Amino acid sequence: MLLLGKLSRRLLPHRRRFLLCRKAECTSATRASLDGALSALRSVCGEDSVLLGEAVREQHGRDESVHSWLLPSRCCPPDVVVFPHCVEEVSALAKVCHKHRLPIIPFGTGTGLEGGVSAVQGGVCFSLRKMEQVLDLHQEDFDVTVEPGVTRKALNAYLRDTGLWFPVDPGADASLCGMAATSASGTNAVRYGTMRENVLNLEVVLADGTVVHTAGKGRHPRKTSAGYNLTNLFVGSEGTLGILTKATLRLYGVPEVVVSAVCSFPSVQSAVDSTVQILQAGVPIARIEFLDEVMVDACNRFSSLSYPVTPTLFLEFHGSEGSLEGQVKTAEDISQSNGGSDFQWAVDVETRNLLWKARHDAWYAALALRPGCKTRMLCTSSSGPIAGHVGDGNFHCLMVLDPGDPEEVQRVHLFTERLARRALAMDGTCTGEHGVGLGKRALLCEELGHAAMQVTSSLKQMLDPMNLMNPGKILQPRGG
Amino acid sequence: MLLLGKLSRRLLPHRRRFLLCRKAECTSATRASLDGALSALRSVCGEDSVLLGEAVREQHGRDESVHSWLLPSRCCPPDVVVFPHCVEEVSALAKVCHKHRLPIIPFGTGTGLEGGVSAVQGGVCFSLRKMEQVLDLHQEDFDVTVEPGVTRKALNAYLRDTGLWFPVDPGADASLCGMAATSASGTNAVRYGTMRENVLNLEVVLADGTVVHTAGKGRHPRKTSAGYNLTNLFVGSEGTLGILTKATLRLYGVPEVVVSAVCSFPSVQSAVDSTVQILQAGVPIARIEFLDEVMVDACNRFSSLSYPVTPTLFLEFHGSEGSLEGQVKTAEDISQSNGGSDFQWAVDVETRNLLWKARHDAWYAALALRPGCKTRMLCTSSSGPIAGHVGDGNFHCLMVLDPGDPEEVQRVHLFTERLARRALAMDGTCTGEHGVGLGKRALLCEELGHAAMQVTSSLKQMLDPMNLMNPGKILQPRGG
Repeated sequence: MLLLGKLSRRLLPHRRRFLLCRKAECTSATRASLDGALSALRSVCGEDSVLLGEAVREQHGRDESVHSWLLPSRCCPPDVVVFPHCVEEVSALAKVCHKHRLPIIPFGTGTGLEGGVSAVQGGVCFSLRKMEQVLDLHQEDFDVTVEPGVTRKALNAYLRDTGLWFPVDPGADASLCGMAATSASGTNAVRYGTMRENVLNLEVVLADGTVVHTAGKGRHPRKTSAGYNLTNLFVGSEGTLGILTKATLRLYGVPEVVVSAVCSFPSVQSAVDSTVQILQAGVPIARIEFLDEVMVDACNRFSSLSYPVTPTLFLEFHGSEGSLEGQVKTAEDISQSNGGSDFQWAVDVETRNLLWKARHDAWYAALALRPGCKTRMLCTSSSGPIAGHVGDGNFHCLMVLDPGDPEEVQRVHLFTERLARRALAMDGTCTGEHGVGLGKRALLCEELGHAAMQVTSSLKQMLDPMNLMNPGKILQPRGG
Repeated sequence: MLLLGKLSRRLLPHRRRFLLCRKAECTSATRASLDGALSALRSVCGEDSVLLGEAVREQHGRDESVHSWLLPSRCCPPDVVVFPHCVEEVSALAKVCHKHRLPIIPFGTGTGLEGGVSAVQGGVCFSLRKMEQVLDLHQEDFDVTVEPGVTRKALNAYLRDTGLWFPVDPGADASLCGMAATSASGTNAVRYGTMRENVLNLEVVLADGTVVHTAGKGRHPRKTSAGYNLTNLFVGSEGTLGILTKATLRLYGVPEVVVSAVCSFPSVQSAVDSTVQILQAGVPIARIEFLDEVMVDACNRFSSLSYPVTPTLFLEFHGSEGSLEGQVKTAEDISQSNGGSDFQWAVDVETRNLLWKARHDAWYAALALRPGCKTRMLCTSSSGPIAGHVGDGNFHCLMVLDPGDPEEVQRVHLFTERLARRALAMDGTCTGEHGVGLGKRALLCEELGHAAMQVTSSLKQMLDPMNLMNPGKILQPRGG
């Protein structure tokens, strides 16, 4: 493939700066491809929605992952960013890319954590933020359809007066289609499931521009056994099989009452034992999160709290007025039988928000431990609940490091590899909730084994034979 | 393809009877194929595990569906039934079939309702009942791995002393891999989900004998975002993509307390409104089932009960001692505000069993309304909760008819088609929980539309290019 340096000025007025920001690991689309494509792209969605500026391209080549600062050579800007307004435009743009063999990289909010938006082979970034309508709310059926630019918080704001909500919460205010694409989940997956369980239908534009409705156009069956589960073929496919242009999501009744509690434990084991026993007792707990003493200390400092600096569970219960009492009593009895403290309560919304903000701010709190440093966030799942989202048996490990210290960077890199392999050795997964992206491709092969990787490759080959859809993610580049 | 009549006596000692039972719609494997295959099959799993008798073949060509008695010509016995003992044998047998181009039809318990086991092109039935070990119970991780012969009830009996259970309950004591293959669910899916949500990993033998572990060999991550969701590609594939030889399943804590209740309503609408409002209130209800007055009457007669003959909800609550009180109070308040009766309680296990037996016996109760007749059971889902598993918005309609009356048979057939199309017109699905099998293939095309059917066909072509895996199910026969 030719380097972008050979592109003409006519095509790319920002050529010089472009060359500066093009990194060693990145390649770019061929001159001929881009040459032919640009005017066609413009004629689909208008001059204003086809951008070539350096800043906008840079911004669309990076996410919030380690790849963005620890391995900047992996953050490759696309050659051009397009902003379609509707599925018809997405399909027409995809056809242009297909014709010119240009890579397509879907972009939601750029809040991913595995480098999924990096344009490692150059190409066309499809930013979907102009498609931001909430469509087809069916209150009595508990579902809603959203365009790909709608974020989690925007949807819940829209739903505010309906008594319904969408509970999947990865922390960041990600776009819901981006969350579907990365199989996102979060703190309350233990009760409500992940995106895998909460997407009822998807509209997908394939690499050749074909529009597919995975459960049939406009359908929103709460439960179906009609044919292959095409919806879950695209959930978690990280843009490598198609562009998600609509998602129909399962909604839930807003619980009448929500109460949160904090419980301190004498040891990690006693906190984990309590979690297992609470789940065994069938308590429909909404969230149950573990923080080790280092993290509690960091949260105390960062959020001006004063929790005892010991292994700690943050818990949340959802239900009706009366039903919560019993849930809470069961959980408290179990915790105390394992040496846990009395529950510290957060019933009013402000105290609850303070508590969960402390949990969500764990990353920043960890950063504040070593000013000037960065964190590397991992998500690993093992067979036994250990820490983090203990209800789901997966945990985040936040490594605070100085990116200017190559020895430390290398040490952290080796540690994270060892950590993921430890999870694999315990029959777990190397990535509980951030996807594979760029960073976990080799580990994925170890996790799945040869036969399942063959099926994975065949799926990619079947739906995207020219390897245009977000190439280089999940699967190693062909021949690479 | 040659008819079986041309097979030699050497191959099939039961030739005469075999010819008698071979039905008009069925075709069979070619003489040459079977000729070469039989000794190879025998050498894999032993003489005793390769059966050719008419009775055993007949028994393996039918399930509990309408196809078995209303359209007997669709119930085609396989040419031979094999009983492998382990995955290595399944793989070796599949290789023999692949070499000889013989269709492979997986068989669990034969309790399906869409004709999934009918050997419409003849071939080799793989009965998996000799593989019936429960493997790898991980109590603290809430999961277990089972071989394909293990049934739902056998697993729950095995789990009895662990405080854990597997809740998906389609009524019949189906094999768990059969339930995975058909995406089964049942009365408590509203709380615990269907097989789609509860299978963590599958071992699958593909048409060419390759063994795939969808989430990696031996892994049981409770939550994962590692690559494409291969597990859910095979869940619901009805034996058309591979043979399920192991399933790793999510388990749940047995609830401390279970209480059931019956509530009578003045109208269908008031019962449905109550259901919607109970779900909106966030009550984690375990089961909520609707019976119309005809069904209540039939159940009263069949099970010697005396419920008021009006639209009725059967409800069940799972939880700890204290937590149930609130759940129940919320549900009762809502029901009464819609004109429902006081709840009639069933707290002790005998009364509860009596109540749910009445619900599960609905089929037999309906049959008893017209002695000598048969039912045709449908499962359809529409966008609005109507009846049946109201919590999931899908319902069964049991049509009692005289199979000897061709006019009535035709009338019922037309009615059922109209019913499914009505569900489709309401943006629902033609099959909420029984799969597609033989009976819903044309409706599936209407439901998914051309593009999604193309993806469906491509998946089949990719994993089973010779169309050997349970041919003629889900997809119409090629060229047919």
